[in-house]
Amino acid sequence: MSKDKRKLGLVGESGTIDKIYCAFILGSTAVSMGTEVHMYFTFFGLQMLQKGAMEKARLPMEYQNLEESFRKRLEAMKYPTPYDLLKSMKESGLLHIYACTPTMEMFGVKRENLIPEVDQLVGAATFLDIATDADVSLFI
Amino acid sequence: MSKDKRKLGLVGESGTIDKIYCAFILGSTAVSMGTEVHMYFTFFGLQMLQKGAMEKARLPMEYQNLEESFRKRLEAMKYPTPYDLLKSMKESGLLHIYACTPTMEMFGVKRENLIPEVDQLVGAATFLDIATDADVSLFI
Amino acid sequence: MSKDKRKLGLVGESGTIDKIYCAFILGSTAVSMGTEVHMYFTFFGLQMLQKGAMEKARLPMEYQNLEESFRKRLEAMKYPTPYDLLKSMKESGLLHIYACTPTMEMFGVKRENLIPEVDQLVGAATFLDIATDADVSLFI
Repeated sequence: MSKDKRKLGLVGESGTIDKIYCAFILGSTAVSMGTEVHMYFTFFGLQMLQKGAMEKARLPMEYQNLEESFRKRLEAMKYPTPYDLLKSMKESGLLHIYACTPTMEMFGVKRENLIPEVDQLVGAATFLDIATDADVSLFI
Repeated sequence: MSKDKRKLGLVGESGTIDKIYCAFILGSTAVSMGTEVHMYFTFFGLQMLQKGAMEKARLPMEYQNLEESFRKRLEAMKYPTPYDLLKSMKESGLLHIYACTPTMEMFGVKRENLIPEVDQLVGAATFLDIATDADVSLFI
Repeated sequence: MSKDKRKLGLVGESGTIDKIYCAFILGSTAVSMGTEVHMYFTFFGLQMLQKGAMEKARLPMEYQNLEESFRKRLEAMKYPTPYDLLKSMKESGLLHIYACTPTMEMFGVKRENLIPEVDQLVGAATFLDIATDADVSLFI
């Protein structure tokens, strides 16, 4: 990859819809600015890469009373779903998705159950190298 | 702003009192070191910028058994409230507060309900530019 | 410390087992790459530094239905416990552990109840200096 591109490194650790949107809105915005986006999914973030999982993500327990109105507003705004955002980032060629291998083993997640957009199954060393090279790295 | 100043970029995503204190204690400490602090509030963090909301923030559900003693200790320490910390950072001229516009739309939050210390209503691109330029960026 | 070493700065704010593993797996991996690791524990992360606390850490409330199978898999994998990971990082000489002094006061945590591997009791200014100097800083 060319060295003159900005790089954003994100760890997606959470499985709640607010954090997924945070990661994907930051990612999509970065992509629209021509930034390479590297997303490393671990723990409950990794679980969201299972087919059909993202669609079922909910708000954190503390905020489930807000969920219905939140969903209705997203619909009214015709806001893209998380998976729509992911696919559109992927089409740019600027998004790289990494699934955390220790998490897969800890939770018994299988490769064939992950969405096809996952690029690599890797461990933390790969993320640390990416983050060291990135302009901004965030743990979400 | 002068370029020789250190910059701290924070995303405030959470609405629980522990994370609010984390953001504001890091921010206040940075300000006391002469660092510019840029805080971007999104999701439940943004909701805490609504008038009167910060005062009602609670510990996460898992820890609500600790809440009473936590409150009593804060009182005994005469520890500043989150809003006190925010106002005192603002007085320094080093704090810039950004409210996330997509969140406002997703949750139906109105400008006139936000505290007056908010400087700008912006999207993720503004935060990414700030973070790229910052010495340290954290997602809280 | 030599200046040619990479540095990783982590804030450990959470007390759930997933986030503790995230911090310690990132930390252990960094140590194995010869990186200096600086961990600043605050709020529920700090509470995990109390003797015997880490062993009782649980998954977040939303995921407690996964806990039993998660524990069984960790056992089957003979995966090191968080405290094992911490001690092995400490043996490398590359791990520095900081306990947040305001948190200790806010929750009434005493020095003598912390694990002996804690290096220093400090405030946020120390962490900000470390993070400014680090190659990567994350809030976990």
